[in-house]
Amino acid sequence: MKNIIIASTSTIYGSDYLEYLLPTLQLFFKGLDEILFIPYARPSGLSYDEYTTVAQKSFKKIGISIKGIHEFKNPKNALAQAKGVFVGGGNTFELVNQLYKKDLIKDLKKIVENGTPYLGTSAGSNICGPTMMTTNDMPIVYPPSFDTLNLIPYTINPHYLDADPNTTHKGETRETRIHEFHVYNKSTVIGLREGSWLVVKGKKIILKGKLTARVFRQNEDPIELAIDSILDY
Amino acid sequence: MKNIIIASTSTIYGSDYLEYLLPTLQLFFKGLDEILFIPYARPSGLSYDEYTTVAQKSFKKIGISIKGIHEFKNPKNALAQAKGVFVGGGNTFELVNQLYKKDLIKDLKKIVENGTPYLGTSAGSNICGPTMMTTNDMPIVYPPSFDTLNLIPYTINPHYLDADPNTTHKGETRETRIHEFHVYNKSTVIGLREGSWLVVKGKKIILKGKLTARVFRQNEDPIELAIDSILDY
Repeated sequence: MKNIIIASTSTIYGSDYLEYLLPTLQLFFKGLDEILFIPYARPSGLSYDEYTTVAQKSFKKIGISIKGIHEFKNPKNALAQAKGVFVGGGNTFELVNQLYKKDLIKDLKKIVENGTPYLGTSAGSNICGPTMMTTNDMPIVYPPSFDTLNLIPYTINPHYLDADPNTTHKGETRETRIHEFHVYNKSTVIGLREGSWLVVKGKKIILKGKLTARVFRQNEDPIELAIDSILDY
Repeated sequence: MKNIIIASTSTIYGSDYLEYLLPTLQLFFKGLDEILFIPYARPSGLSYDEYTTVAQKSFKKIGISIKGIHEFKNPKNALAQAKGVFVGGGNTFELVNQLYKKDLIKDLKKIVENGTPYLGTSAGSNICGPTMMTTNDMPIVYPPSFDTLNLIPYTINPHYLDADPNTTHKGETRETRIHEFHVYNKSTVIGLREGSWLVVKGKKIILKGKLTARVFRQNEDPIELAIDSILDY
């Protein structure tokens, strides 16, 4: 049974990395002493080692060790043996690029479908849907495809941001961008505000956190999804 | 001799489409009664006809007719015959996708290198550099490549936005995104704030408008480029 946490962000304003999620993660990864970290998204260009150290520091607080996938000779074996997986945020294009280059998309999908607990934040959440096409990131590398893990039939927009009514900036709002996505694509988009996350248990998806989420269906007005709402599929 | 205007945006706050640029465009396109419009970027999903009508309305004020490239049977012929070209903003991924699908990248590059005046706004400016990798747009379609016209040796970030010191949002700032670009790419990036534009005359590039631009070189601190600065290359 799928067992996934899809978080909008790793960090909320004024708190440490993953801090707001730690009580949830303690229950989610209960019984595991080590999980596999995938640092490929390299936020701000951090090295894999540096990024793994950041994750390690937070997970230590709940008694879990972190091992970076880059520390293994064979990343496919690392995935096959993993008791739990955490895919951190950063640049989604680079994350997806590396997963394709190392031929890990199918392996990662398989273990999560077989029940290995998966935590994604930001870019790591973006790849849970059928495509990464609603990422907010810059296309700084050209991945072989925009298709992603398709673990849930919703496309994720992490760090969802409401339009600022007072702005004078004329760049597209997030809502406009998602509307443009729907000119070319049918998939329903969930805009996850910072501090919100989805819990996926088998075929059930539940919204958690302190904020509603914004759901965009093609050719329909967006709606707000209440906290603790269940999305079946 | 190349003759190009690379504008950050088509529209500044509180004014009509292209309004702030019209006095400049009147001189730039002097002597021309019709220019070719490329509406492929389809902002907000507008149809090619709708978008062409928007452009037509503004150019009418300076006595210039607009004809959309989609009104021609053969877009290659349309480019070959064009006296001037305007590539409008919208989604850069879709713009680049269509230019590749219709095999127009080389044709467009050729006429501009031969001196046909070119106006780009937003996405239409983004494609003037070697790559579209510093676009702000969502990757709503998968283009065959991120390589673009390479008319100038700088990569453009239109709608450049300074970080808001008061924000509590944890999504990446524009500067962080451009820094991440430079982890994988060498090309110098020009962050063009709204209301700024570059004038390219042969091998000379001049910054125009009321605001400085931010220049990001790999492994260097960003600098501010003063108005009327000349960038040689």
